[in-house]
Amino acid sequence: MDGRGVRELLQEVADGRVSVDDAVLKLKQQPFEDLGFAKVDLHRGLRQGVPEVIFGAGKTPEQIATIAERMLERGETSVLITRMPPETADIVSRSVDIVYDPVSRIAVAGKTNEERVGKITVMTAGTSDIPVAEEAAQTAEALGNNVVRIFDAGVSGIHRLLAHSDDIMTSRVIVTVAGMEGALASVVGGIADCPVIAVPTSVGYGASFGGLSALLTMLNSCASGVSVVNIDNGFGAGYLASMINRIGLD
Amino acid sequence: MDGRGVRELLQEVADGRVSVDDAVLKLKQQPFEDLGFAKVDLHRGLRQGVPEVIFGAGKTPEQIATIAERMLERGETSVLITRMPPETADIVSRSVDIVYDPVSRIAVAGKTNEERVGKITVMTAGTSDIPVAEEAAQTAEALGNNVVRIFDAGVSGIHRLLAHSDDIMTSRVIVTVAGMEGALASVVGGIADCPVIAVPTSVGYGASFGGLSALLTMLNSCASGVSVVNIDNGFGAGYLASMINRIGLD
Amino acid sequence: MDGRGVRELLQEVADGRVSVDDAVLKLKQQPFEDLGFAKVDLHRGLRQGVPEVIFGAGKTPEQIATIAERMLERGETSVLITRMPPETADIVSRSVDIVYDPVSRIAVAGKTNEERVGKITVMTAGTSDIPVAEEAAQTAEALGNNVVRIFDAGVSGIHRLLAHSDDIMTSRVIVTVAGMEGALASVVGGIADCPVIAVPTSVGYGASFGGLSALLTMLNSCASGVSVVNIDNGFGAGYLASMINRIGLD
Amino acid sequence: MDGRGVRELLQEVADGRVSVDDAVLKLKQQPFEDLGFAKVDLHRGLRQGVPEVIFGAGKTPEQIATIAERMLERGETSVLITRMPPETADIVSRSVDIVYDPVSRIAVAGKTNEERVGKITVMTAGTSDIPVAEEAAQTAEALGNNVVRIFDAGVSGIHRLLAHSDDIMTSRVIVTVAGMEGALASVVGGIADCPVIAVPTSVGYGASFGGLSALLTMLNSCASGVSVVNIDNGFGAGYLASMINRIGLD
Amino acid sequence: MDGRGVRELLQEVADGRVSVDDAVLKLKQQPFEDLGFAKVDLHRGLRQGVPEVIFGAGKTPEQIATIAERMLERGETSVLITRMPPETADIVSRSVDIVYDPVSRIAVAGKTNEERVGKITVMTAGTSDIPVAEEAAQTAEALGNNVVRIFDAGVSGIHRLLAHSDDIMTSRVIVTVAGMEGALASVVGGIADCPVIAVPTSVGYGASFGGLSALLTMLNSCASGVSVVNIDNGFGAGYLASMINRIGLD
Amino acid sequence: MDGRGVRELLQEVADGRVSVDDAVLKLKQQPFEDLGFAKVDLHRGLRQGVPEVIFGAGKTPEQIATIAERMLERGETSVLITRMPPETADIVSRSVDIVYDPVSRIAVAGKTNEERVGKITVMTAGTSDIPVAEEAAQTAEALGNNVVRIFDAGVSGIHRLLAHSDDIMTSRVIVTVAGMEGALASVVGGIADCPVIAVPTSVGYGASFGGLSALLTMLNSCASGVSVVNIDNGFGAGYLASMINRIGLD
Amino acid sequence: MDGRGVRELLQEVADGRVSVDDAVLKLKQQPFEDLGFAKVDLHRGLRQGVPEVIFGAGKTPEQIATIAERMLERGETSVLITRMPPETADIVSRSVDIVYDPVSRIAVAGKTNEERVGKITVMTAGTSDIPVAEEAAQTAEALGNNVVRIFDAGVSGIHRLLAHSDDIMTSRVIVTVAGMEGALASVVGGIADCPVIAVPTSVGYGASFGGLSALLTMLNSCASGVSVVNIDNGFGAGYLASMINRIGLD
Amino acid sequence: MDGRGVRELLQEVADGRVSVDDAVLKLKQQPFEDLGFAKVDLHRGLRQGVPEVIFGAGKTPEQIATIAERMLERGETSVLITRMPPETADIVSRSVDIVYDPVSRIAVAGKTNEERVGKITVMTAGTSDIPVAEEAAQTAEALGNNVVRIFDAGVSGIHRLLAHSDDIMTSRVIVTVAGMEGALASVVGGIADCPVIAVPTSVGYGASFGGLSALLTMLNSCASGVSVVNIDNGFGAGYLASMINRIGLD
Repeated sequence: MDGRGVRELLQEVADGRVSVDDAVLKLKQQPFEDLGFAKVDLHRGLRQGVPEVIFGAGKTPEQIATIAERMLERGETSVLITRMPPETADIVSRSVDIVYDPVSRIAVAGKTNEERVGKITVMTAGTSDIPVAEEAAQTAEALGNNVVRIFDAGVSGIHRLLAHSDDIMTSRVIVTVAGMEGALASVVGGIADCPVIAVPTSVGYGASFGGLSALLTMLNSCASGVSVVNIDNGFGAGYLASMINRIGLD
Repeated sequence: MDGRGVRELLQEVADGRVSVDDAVLKLKQQPFEDLGFAKVDLHRGLRQGVPEVIFGAGKTPEQIATIAERMLERGETSVLITRMPPETADIVSRSVDIVYDPVSRIAVAGKTNEERVGKITVMTAGTSDIPVAEEAAQTAEALGNNVVRIFDAGVSGIHRLLAHSDDIMTSRVIVTVAGMEGALASVVGGIADCPVIAVPTSVGYGASFGGLSALLTMLNSCASGVSVVNIDNGFGAGYLASMINRIGLD
Repeated sequence: MDGRGVRELLQEVADGRVSVDDAVLKLKQQPFEDLGFAKVDLHRGLRQGVPEVIFGAGKTPEQIATIAERMLERGETSVLITRMPPETADIVSRSVDIVYDPVSRIAVAGKTNEERVGKITVMTAGTSDIPVAEEAAQTAEALGNNVVRIFDAGVSGIHRLLAHSDDIMTSRVIVTVAGMEGALASVVGGIADCPVIAVPTSVGYGASFGGLSALLTMLNSCASGVSVVNIDNGFGAGYLASMINRIGLD
Repeated sequence: MDGRGVRELLQEVADGRVSVDDAVLKLKQQPFEDLGFAKVDLHRGLRQGVPEVIFGAGKTPEQIATIAERMLERGETSVLITRMPPETADIVSRSVDIVYDPVSRIAVAGKTNEERVGKITVMTAGTSDIPVAEEAAQTAEALGNNVVRIFDAGVSGIHRLLAHSDDIMTSRVIVTVAGMEGALASVVGGIADCPVIAVPTSVGYGASFGGLSALLTMLNSCASGVSVVNIDNGFGAGYLASMINRIGLD
Repeated sequence: MDGRGVRELLQEVADGRVSVDDAVLKLKQQPFEDLGFAKVDLHRGLRQGVPEVIFGAGKTPEQIATIAERMLERGETSVLITRMPPETADIVSRSVDIVYDPVSRIAVAGKTNEERVGKITVMTAGTSDIPVAEEAAQTAEALGNNVVRIFDAGVSGIHRLLAHSDDIMTSRVIVTVAGMEGALASVVGGIADCPVIAVPTSVGYGASFGGLSALLTMLNSCASGVSVVNIDNGFGAGYLASMINRIGLD
Repeated sequence: MDGRGVRELLQEVADGRVSVDDAVLKLKQQPFEDLGFAKVDLHRGLRQGVPEVIFGAGKTPEQIATIAERMLERGETSVLITRMPPETADIVSRSVDIVYDPVSRIAVAGKTNEERVGKITVMTAGTSDIPVAEEAAQTAEALGNNVVRIFDAGVSGIHRLLAHSDDIMTSRVIVTVAGMEGALASVVGGIADCPVIAVPTSVGYGASFGGLSALLTMLNSCASGVSVVNIDNGFGAGYLASMINRIGLD
Repeated sequence: MDGRGVRELLQEVADGRVSVDDAVLKLKQQPFEDLGFAKVDLHRGLRQGVPEVIFGAGKTPEQIATIAERMLERGETSVLITRMPPETADIVSRSVDIVYDPVSRIAVAGKTNEERVGKITVMTAGTSDIPVAEEAAQTAEALGNNVVRIFDAGVSGIHRLLAHSDDIMTSRVIVTVAGMEGALASVVGGIADCPVIAVPTSVGYGASFGGLSALLTMLNSCASGVSVVNIDNGFGAGYLASMINRIGLD
Repeated sequence: MDGRGVRELLQEVADGRVSVDDAVLKLKQQPFEDLGFAKVDLHRGLRQGVPEVIFGAGKTPEQIATIAERMLERGETSVLITRMPPETADIVSRSVDIVYDPVSRIAVAGKTNEERVGKITVMTAGTSDIPVAEEAAQTAEALGNNVVRIFDAGVSGIHRLLAHSDDIMTSRVIVTVAGMEGALASVVGGIADCPVIAVPTSVGYGASFGGLSALLTMLNSCASGVSVVNIDNGFGAGYLASMINRIGLD
């Protein structure tokens, strides 16, 4: 019930069509959804043209399949399933029609988004960072964004990175994915004029401490326009990148 | 020297007006600035309409004054000086004309930006977070953005926060500033449809460990669209918020 | 031997029925149990109507079965066994009659408590937190408390949480179970008028650092009435919730 | 506006005494306070007989005085001000009538609560923990609870602690305050039958790491019924202790 | 009241010289001290020939003076006061007769112990570690032990350390005091045949993290016979060294 | 070559039986072993009556067997092998005659030490700490010490601990083994008059952080006479306990 | 394209043999490689006489084989593959001719470097550190350096270490590899006159925290001339040692 | 006593000029210094042409002055004093003739080294890193090395860094000094062909955690040839840089 709904309810009370008791109950039962100050999950797809998302990690194949089926039944155009291991995808695919990518561990159920806008560049420092980068890239693509991939462009071979300065300069938003020393975000942030989303990864050993090193590096970036998401959170980066890329294009 | 400049130089070589040796030297001396793959600091103000920024912490008043004077002489419209203690501002103001705010410790030298666009909402969880929030807000204002301030709206009094759902729902980008448990970003991120920049602050005591608690909370936010900057980095949040807010408006 | 027992022993000495040497020995052998300043483990069930508890982790099935059998032989009404993996439960069930729940990994041997009082609400932020929540809920139920479960009500969808404000407002004590950013306790603590026990979980990845993020968030909660137990310690939360819920009802 | 107020407003709409527009406005302005799912800050004192609380740290004397004055004007019986340094108290006392305790740094403005119920025992391991313990004790007293103080009863002299077993056994709730190794909570938790609130303090040096050592000890307590608040958070412990102590006594 | 005291009390009850009620009261008032399972603080000096100890840090000069005076009045031969800043010592010395050492910040009130036995060697890696080493050495001397000092014998100049192998080989116990990399304990532990007590110090900068580096080094020592006390805990090391040194000599 | 060996060599040079060149060579080849300032590994067994020790973790069964065989061939009475998994022990036992204990993972090759002196008490807080405690106890026994075991005497049931005060008071040295909150050492240290060696264990979950919690607790112990070894280092504690226990008894 | 290549290109432009447009394109396509300010990966082998390196961890056997084949096809004399598990080596060896060492997990494809210069000493504290040490040693050998190995020379048996003082004094650079307390670097650094590269290893347990202890020890080394690489980074140490050893010898 | 000395002593024994007892004593008293396996501190200056170094932090002006005077009296050409605050320098300069630099806090007593060889480049990421960089640079200069300074060349403005590629490519060793994200070392390490010594600094705020962020970044550098010294350890970097630079030039 949105603001207009409240007004209508009050009018019905004023008109004697709804009793005071019933109105109290209605206001009490759905106070937030009705008043419009919270994202209504079920309507998000329709309103924003984005698919619903299921975080697959820690859910059974049955749970994932059930949730996806219900969403599609309720009219979602497409459903994005993240962090789903191949074995789980296998089981889910028996009851739901999905397109699954084993590198990013992302599946799309329903219609995939074919219309893509803007330009998001997803970069990695090394080859081991690619799974996280693909999670970001495929999330962004599922949400209807053009994505350019630049992989293995770490700062210890700065010429490889600079060879892509054209793409860096013309992106609307950049996702930098790096483990180990995580310096990629700073260098890219210094070159680019657009927002840079930094994704630390748990790639590394020893004093990388499971991604802590890259995380701290990125948080301390001296370049303006850089912000950071959780370690290995490719989905979060792709989702935020889509939000920013689509500004003014929706 | 930009791409066109390189072409012109080569043309001059082809025309015999410039010797091969001189051309080699020129290309060597300014290889990156010339080729256009790096932000040319001196021209940034002209190109983007944003003021130059001096990070005041750890610089002497003399250094700050000198840098600001040179920038203004070279044609910058305005210069933003951050993290400047009142005593330093006092000394700087003797040689440079500045507008100084003691809460955010930000000064603007030169012409302040009067034209403001879009809508950035800056929120704090508590009153002690206000200095960091003001750093973000005044940075954003100096960069030409409309800023709405919502202070002391922490999640332990959720109704105070929800009372501002209108502003939350209509912002183009939101900056949430919080110390202690830092949960503000998650709640706001769940309500808003726009990017949320989370700024952990060092406000707190005991197990807040100088802002670590708020930082981890924000990095682990389950809400989509949230990204994080360094502890107490109001400037970085304001700068990034401006970048995002101005997309499609410049 | 309680205070009265000591008096009686002294009277026996005064009456010459007990020799000084024997009295010295008696006082020496059971000094603490006798004097009443320590919970007498064997009598706790009778006194408090609560079952004995066996912490199952790190014990062999044989050890668990033996302890449970002895307790029941000694007259315990029921014995609660926590942190017991399914395989262990399988073996234990061959020699002891248990009711086992694989989600919470809790078993009850002996008579289950059917009489339940008061109202404890157990909430989780996500679905992955449910095993820890069930450990709390089933512990509380085994100790004779009414338990209301509200799962998957994380703060990034604040309307889902607020839809349960009736239960929150009418509980005598609330257990909030959350991993990742762990902000649930703060929001609930701000709404509720009763004690809130916060259980951080190790659910999450990256900068959740095995539950550290949620732990720090909960310790830094700005809401009054919130206290914290160890990461994943559902049993401890359920036990404490029972203690509080039963005040004035026993 | 509470639940009854909403009903009355609706009745007024039904009766035609209030227009639909005015009702919408009223519901919009105070949507959460009115509907009853949030603690109404202004009415808390009346409803619960507890004073309002001002967290003094990080506020100027002027801010504190203004907030306290407003609260008293609005009808609060008494206002508790915590974490207020002596110098601040000095300035505040010029405009507001306060009773200030320099050890706990707590002040009470307005009428102090004279009626006290139940029994809360506040214990410390050492003498340096007393300021935090007094913050807990005086908070609890201001909230109308009987408080027994047992100071300097650390576990390295277990007989000193056990000499107070009578008080430990007869409390309705116990607050244990300890720095360094923080083992007090475990020992007391093993003796007591009531909830134990553990407050780690930053007392110590070296590997106490600002209270981290005591915090971890308390979180890992093997005793049932123990929960933990933030390092040095005497107020939080006293507030929660009051909540628990008053169950069934209000 | 020791074991004999309990017997005597019981005899008095048997003889009718003490009433049952009085005996109950006596047993209740000092239950642990009487039964002998706890060190009786007041008698420790007499029994062990060691002085009482006051931990001076965090106590006011008045508190220290009062405690020391009472101890001396009750018959303590000498009282050791540790961690006392010079200004505090100044004030204490006005009411109590003390011998104060500004390097170790230790004072002795009453008669100093002149009789010394055995051999404790106290070594430091650098000159900055000397205050902590002196705290250990003077504690040990006050407790009646011969102490040999070997300062500035860090492992980066191994010949300086090995030049003292005679003292190392003939000590009954060794205290090694080191900050920075803290490797002294391992090297000495590998040479010596006696227990080595390792004291990490907070001397250092950067990645010494307030003594954490030396602490971890010492805990990980591959040499057998090494154990560790808290960072900067010279007193603890000196006290333990005395305990070990005096075995078989008392 | 010990001190006497050097003297003999010099005598041979003086007598002309050994040339100067040969003497230089001999001194050079074994400079430290000869001069007596370093524990001569090969002779330690003869000199101290203690067996040699092989740290089994990270060594192949073949390596362990070879080292043990060589040691026995060279005349060692017995060899202690620690941290050896059952499978390794199985393989080693095919070529070397060992007595293996699967709980402590310790094996003894050669003649076991039957003569035992003094009294070492090894205590644990819980049953899960027993493997580490047994490593300490069996090390101490192999080194010829009487060992008393007191297991499952954690501080949350203080009466269980105090029931053993007789053993605590009459030990020459005590080893306390505890995970989780690790408070055992402080309580025992406050009761005992002898050195207490604290062994933190990795037993626990959540905020025990692999033994860090117990480690910090023990380092911060307020009881005098307590020192700490590495997490799970039962061998180190048993070895040091033997060193201390045997003082004056060898 | 190196500096000479740029000159030649410009000459071709001046001569009219290359159009301006084509020259712009060429400069743009390889701007950094051409201008000489970046190590040209493909030419490094030729220029420096060192083999190319493939970091094997996290790469599939197919990826490794493909990269190695391409490098050899392009004229690399030899290719070093690090961190390659035996199973991977097995698969790679089917398509590429490699010499593989299972201890260091290093393989060399192509011609091994037979010519060796200078002197690098690689030392370990214990036997478990040998795999990391071999990674360093074999990297250095593959890069054409003489390597002396001194294993199991930890500081807790200082005479074993000092017995190798000749090698220590005559090395051009030393690599010290140690886990646990990691003190080896400090002692060697104090004896040697040459640069010492310290490699902390993850060997250890408990408070070694995966190599953190050794890392901090080495960073805090008081000996001059010591620097540190990442935990377990034998390759990095061997590569840097080669760089230093070959100074003046190439 | 060096190897020759031992031979001579043995000859004297063989000749009967020295008794066996006296020879034993002599060998025992100076075993290490005599045999030549340890750097003899007093002779280092003569042998290596480098000045002695006094670590000034934590020493009194009197201590520093005395040590410096003694060194100069004993024939040192020059003495380097590091980490000396201006006030201390002031006092020291009254008794010793020093040249003091307030930025690096380094003083040189005696003759400054005028002869300089090779090329060391010292780079900083920001202006706040200059004091640490100057400590490195002036240490290197005092040890007789040519030093090139490149300050404020952080990676977020990569063109500023690359503009110095000539110096980077022609250095014999490079010292990179950076706080915050500390990425400078990786980028420089990827460009340079010589050893790169990385110095993390404590410059920064928030999640820089006193230099931890830069430290971890540098340890995780993917560039070969990079090693790391302690946070803010400019002296250590300068000393090591000198060691490497002078290889083949002495």
